[in-house]
Amino acid sequence: MTKSIADIKNSKIIAVIGQGKGCPEDIALLAEEVGFEIAKHGGILLCGGLDGVMNASCKGAKRAGGMTIGILPGEHKSESNPFVDIPIVTGMSVARNVIIARTADAIIAVGGKFGTLSEIAYGLSFGKAIVGLKTWELEAGIISAASPVEAVRSAFSMMQ
Amino acid sequence: MTKSIADIKNSKIIAVIGQGKGCPEDIALLAEEVGFEIAKHGGILLCGGLDGVMNASCKGAKRAGGMTIGILPGEHKSESNPFVDIPIVTGMSVARNVIIARTADAIIAVGGKFGTLSEIAYGLSFGKAIVGLKTWELEAGIISAASPVEAVRSAFSMMQ
Amino acid sequence: MTKSIADIKNSKIIAVIGQGKGCPEDIALLAEEVGFEIAKHGGILLCGGLDGVMNASCKGAKRAGGMTIGILPGEHKSESNPFVDIPIVTGMSVARNVIIARTADAIIAVGGKFGTLSEIAYGLSFGKAIVGLKTWELEAGIISAASPVEAVRSAFSMMQ
Amino acid sequence: MTKSIADIKNSKIIAVIGQGKGCPEDIALLAEEVGFEIAKHGGILLCGGLDGVMNASCKGAKRAGGMTIGILPGEHKSESNPFVDIPIVTGMSVARNVIIARTADAIIAVGGKFGTLSEIAYGLSFGKAIVGLKTWELEAGIISAASPVEAVRSAFSMMQ
Repeated sequence: MTKSIADIKNSKIIAVIGQGKGCPEDIALLAEEVGFEIAKHGGILLCGGLDGVMNASCKGAKRAGGMTIGILPGEHKSESNPFVDIPIVTGMSVARNVIIARTADAIIAVGGKFGTLSEIAYGLSFGKAIVGLKTWELEAGIISAASPVEAVRSAFSMMQ
Repeated sequence: MTKSIADIKNSKIIAVIGQGKGCPEDIALLAEEVGFEIAKHGGILLCGGLDGVMNASCKGAKRAGGMTIGILPGEHKSESNPFVDIPIVTGMSVARNVIIARTADAIIAVGGKFGTLSEIAYGLSFGKAIVGLKTWELEAGIISAASPVEAVRSAFSMMQ
Repeated sequence: MTKSIADIKNSKIIAVIGQGKGCPEDIALLAEEVGFEIAKHGGILLCGGLDGVMNASCKGAKRAGGMTIGILPGEHKSESNPFVDIPIVTGMSVARNVIIARTADAIIAVGGKFGTLSEIAYGLSFGKAIVGLKTWELEAGIISAASPVEAVRSAFSMMQ
Repeated sequence: MTKSIADIKNSKIIAVIGQGKGCPEDIALLAEEVGFEIAKHGGILLCGGLDGVMNASCKGAKRAGGMTIGILPGEHKSESNPFVDIPIVTGMSVARNVIIARTADAIIAVGGKFGTLSEIAYGLSFGKAIVGLKTWELEAGIISAASPVEAVRSAFSMMQ
């Protein structure tokens, strides 16, 4: 568990990606549980820092006492959701999706639309482990999970 | 037809996206014909500036007397293929895929792997017209074409 | 002179950088003459695509029948000034300054504030020839010019 | 002091910028003290994640038990110096300088060449507080400090 500053360096960074504004409630609930499980298992939660799946997963991670990083598309940290501990401010709009995919040790996609698909595509091209919960299905590359608990367990097992 | 400098401003910019190094020969031949048709119909060809589909489509466009732009991932214009007229040097690696998708008036995907999928995903999220030739199939958004001629015709008709 | 599409590939790309909105009139007039001279000598004008020095230099280049490229910070080509022939749409805000400095064969700074200074700094770090007209003065690296004619002559001579 | 995960959200993020490889030893020693002071006063240290001033300032921050973030230019976290706790992997080369300047609540420049100047320029354009130790001197905007202790004190006082 990432309980102190000294634990951070050895913690895995796991990105949770998915729809922002307009995200369905059931998807947000899944994302919150994914965030909770990531923190419970000592992972650092990485996301795009905004609403929907990003907000929900950060909320879950903080509920478990974890740490959260938001890679923001806009120009000010004020746009980050209230559960982001460390706002990284890019001002590069969706080009920040590349940074999320590169920085993550593993990626969990929960639902999601075209923006999420761009992150999945980058993640796959970078050889990252990607777990999906009710998300895009591609012929190759995404490990499907049936629940938040299973998704996080898969992500951690793929990073070993 | 884009014959003189004065025509450039009113020409449509059409991106051709697809695999770079290791691109199969049949896909490269399709890409070359796509590039030829784009130039023949007065479009400016936009691509990632490197090998494979990018090189072939530029070659085709130049054969028709057209103009080509390469949005390069690396730090030097020397990496561009010999058929690029205007090398735009980003140094931003695959984050340059965003620029291709934003700059294009329409996008034609020929074959392609995960990098191409990231460009398709960005293009769809930006609301761009996307035509596909032997490429990724998604439930929504990509207009499938049976030949280079049809692909270019579709792209132009969608921009009207 | 860049008169036809076939000339583009062998033309030098020269960036003109400086203040956007709020640019003083005398600086804009200098920038217009710089743009005119670049096009007269067969160069392609590259800029950030917006107002002030960018707009004025593009206007000058078009008056001489030249070609212009704008590397736009925003998400839509509609933000480009009316004298841009080729709008490259980055959506990356001022991170696009890097692309201007990398793409240019030489850079001419006309006036300018902190944004211009970032472009000068990048240009110097990339080893680009930089000519200045009423701009930032640094101990090393910027060749000072007394007029638009001299600035463009210096830029071309440094690229040989 | 940032001692636990719960403190992170309310900690100030202070960037230390300066030369990487080839950085003179006296500058590195100053940077190490700056990093130490930042952590001692409860700040999170942000930097470009590589060698020279970046390595030294992270080393100092860790000596004081602080937390460090590196915004890396390359494509792999393995390039980060050993004192970086959280490597943010951009793959965008020096375009990552923008992210450093945007993310920082205040910036301390220690020595530095053209890359540092680009970060100073961005920081000034974003209205960030900038303190300088043996660095670029510009007519306006950089608060000069005589020692690491004074630099960090200035930075914190400007953020209030």
